[in-house]
Amino acid sequence: MSSRAASLAIEPPAETTAPPRRPRPVVDMADLAPYASNRRIVGAANGSGGFRVAWDDGAVADFHPLWLRAECACPECRSRVTLERTFDHFGLPLDLGASAVEVTGEGALRLVWSDRGHVSLFDPGWLWSKARPRAEASAPAPWCAELARALPTFEHGAIMADDGALHAWLVALRDVGLALLHGVPGAAGEVERVARRISLPRDTNFGVIFDVITKPDANSNAYTTIELPGHVDLPTREYQPGFQLFHCLVNQAAGGESTYVDGFALAEALRAEEPERFRLLCETPIGFRFHDHVCDYAWRAPVIGLGSNGELREIRFNPWLTEPLEVAPERFAAIYGALRRFDELTRDPRFQVRIKLEAGMMSAFDNRRVLHGRAAFDETGGRRHFQGCYVEREEVTSRIEVLERSL
Amino acid sequence: MSSRAASLAIEPPAETTAPPRRPRPVVDMADLAPYASNRRIVGAANGSGGFRVAWDDGAVADFHPLWLRAECACPECRSRVTLERTFDHFGLPLDLGASAVEVTGEGALRLVWSDRGHVSLFDPGWLWSKARPRAEASAPAPWCAELARALPTFEHGAIMADDGALHAWLVALRDVGLALLHGVPGAAGEVERVARRISLPRDTNFGVIFDVITKPDANSNAYTTIELPGHVDLPTREYQPGFQLFHCLVNQAAGGESTYVDGFALAEALRAEEPERFRLLCETPIGFRFHDHVCDYAWRAPVIGLGSNGELREIRFNPWLTEPLEVAPERFAAIYGALRRFDELTRDPRFQVRIKLEAGMMSAFDNRRVLHGRAAFDETGGRRHFQGCYVEREEVTSRIEVLERSL
Repeated sequence: MSSRAASLAIEPPAETTAPPRRPRPVVDMADLAPYASNRRIVGAANGSGGFRVAWDDGAVADFHPLWLRAECACPECRSRVTLERTFDHFGLPLDLGASAVEVTGEGALRLVWSDRGHVSLFDPGWLWSKARPRAEASAPAPWCAELARALPTFEHGAIMADDGALHAWLVALRDVGLALLHGVPGAAGEVERVARRISLPRDTNFGVIFDVITKPDANSNAYTTIELPGHVDLPTREYQPGFQLFHCLVNQAAGGESTYVDGFALAEALRAEEPERFRLLCETPIGFRFHDHVCDYAWRAPVIGLGSNGELREIRFNPWLTEPLEVAPERFAAIYGALRRFDELTRDPRFQVRIKLEAGMMSAFDNRRVLHGRAAFDETGGRRHFQGCYVEREEVTSRIEVLERSL
Repeated sequence: MSSRAASLAIEPPAETTAPPRRPRPVVDMADLAPYASNRRIVGAANGSGGFRVAWDDGAVADFHPLWLRAECACPECRSRVTLERTFDHFGLPLDLGASAVEVTGEGALRLVWSDRGHVSLFDPGWLWSKARPRAEASAPAPWCAELARALPTFEHGAIMADDGALHAWLVALRDVGLALLHGVPGAAGEVERVARRISLPRDTNFGVIFDVITKPDANSNAYTTIELPGHVDLPTREYQPGFQLFHCLVNQAAGGESTYVDGFALAEALRAEEPERFRLLCETPIGFRFHDHVCDYAWRAPVIGLGSNGELREIRFNPWLTEPLEVAPERFAAIYGALRRFDELTRDPRFQVRIKLEAGMMSAFDNRRVLHGRAAFDETGGRRHFQGCYVEREEVTSRIEVLERSL
């Protein structure tokens, strides 16, 4: 199992056969994530760009004095109970320097500050990891219909009992955005138990658990028998839910196959093939709205949400919750055309994974990336009953981080 | 009490003394929000820009045929149960036109479509309201220390029992971002009851209700006695909580006054006085992190979050959860300087509202706009106990919308 510390560890010599042991930190940096390594600092000096630090692997980095002082992790500066900073790091003198810059016998950096003689110690592995900008999360690889032949699939019993299996499932969810569980007990509420194995579920007006069944008083098309074209749930919220867990309790109806499409793949296809439509979908806020007798949610945002570096962050698309377009009549045809093209792509078999989920299966997918849909169904021959639950992206990421401390 | 419909109603003649009655819709548009008005459509024709519609108040607007067809609210096109669209509006012929364009005797628009002769009826008030782009939410007026003399204040008993009082409190929260409740019962859990009077509370790793008391095993500086400078809660999440409700159960400790600063006022001051620092705080992602033995949340975003039109959307600032800056050493001084200046402004008395909350008071504030803090306190003379709870912005907005249907 990968971990941050492992990726920083020096390879053992070839003749060593014992498994590499995780090194111990030299300095307690009040950080629960692994940061120790066998690297040592071999030189440190005051330079024009701050303090220059050199490691035994040849790495060299410059640190601004105020940066280092703000990160001092001694018990005066960072609480050993809360692990949070407890001093006013914005009140430091701007011309702060050090009266001593030393390397300890264990290869740590020791600084005595010009301001009141405070002493800071920095672990060589921790400082090494901070010397390079954190790698941005790599862009997820988009997938097409072929994913159906290699769909990430896991056993319910394993992910509930074993942290390694749980980690593998969550990494698939984070990176692929779609995975299946088999062997899920048929009990109502199991979807929430699985969600709580990750972290907190997200409550909404539809409940922590929502029953996807046919309802006479349906307040959503999901609770009818009609086809649902590819969509995300709750695009009407500024905060669209992250992951959706979807547990099949009964599926004896005719039809009702589930469809999954990677919205990031659609966006990349548009970016390559129809850049003007891609631009329109990135820049034009589209209104979405849900309302019933107790609530009225509306939000406006582009269909394709980009991060500050142009990376794909989220998809917001739902044909039946789209509000009347608020665009000048002369712009209507272009924007309608771009939306229509996106809708066509959600229906294009080259992108679509289609599965008839059966009792005992649970799909999970990134609702801000993967468009899900279902075929119309007919319950005259048997019932169809699913239960769903949402868990935010940040809860999945947090769980992965904590699991990687010990795996 | 204001409502959308009222703002569209024709003024009654001067001699009329009876209160104006809300008009009835002519056509059921499957929309629960008020849209009916006394306006009538007096003319409609096919034009080069689509259909041109004229009302009896002189208003004229053009509508694209596909726009109108997509919004058809007849029971075939929009479910009377879910109120959601049930037909594939992206599958319409691009050259769709109408074989008949008529005004009904009640002043509604009636269209017979060239495609299969489908008939659509549009209420004149609904169509009038869609003819103009929705007003963007007006930028909230920033406030300074003077707000302390006119702080929006409400009675707990009133907002819990009366929808008009609830509406007034929520509008103050939306527009000012800070309000006080008096007369709050001292029972633990009351903060959640107030939250549920609005809508759903947001659960987090700290619980639906979090007890702000001194804890020996504190996992947050909030649970100690130290000063907390102005900050927002949970900047470590992509989804920072919207509103925070904060209920004072006991406050007999010495010190511990609460401080509130309008982060939008700080941002506007910087924009006017130090535009380069404003730009840096809008453009530089800053890392925030919280971790303990069960979770590890981290997010990177600028301190000042702008919407697509440059409007202020949210503030993300917390001195003790700020991660080591990931900027090149030569940029460090400028970015540290901008953060330091923002921190100074949070402490500047000209911006700060300072209150010692007492038992029976509850403050509520927009956690994505208003920085809150507290002075250090000493419990040797008496205890300090608050309970907090989060409710998202969109839950407040939804509740306001629903209340305005009937107020």
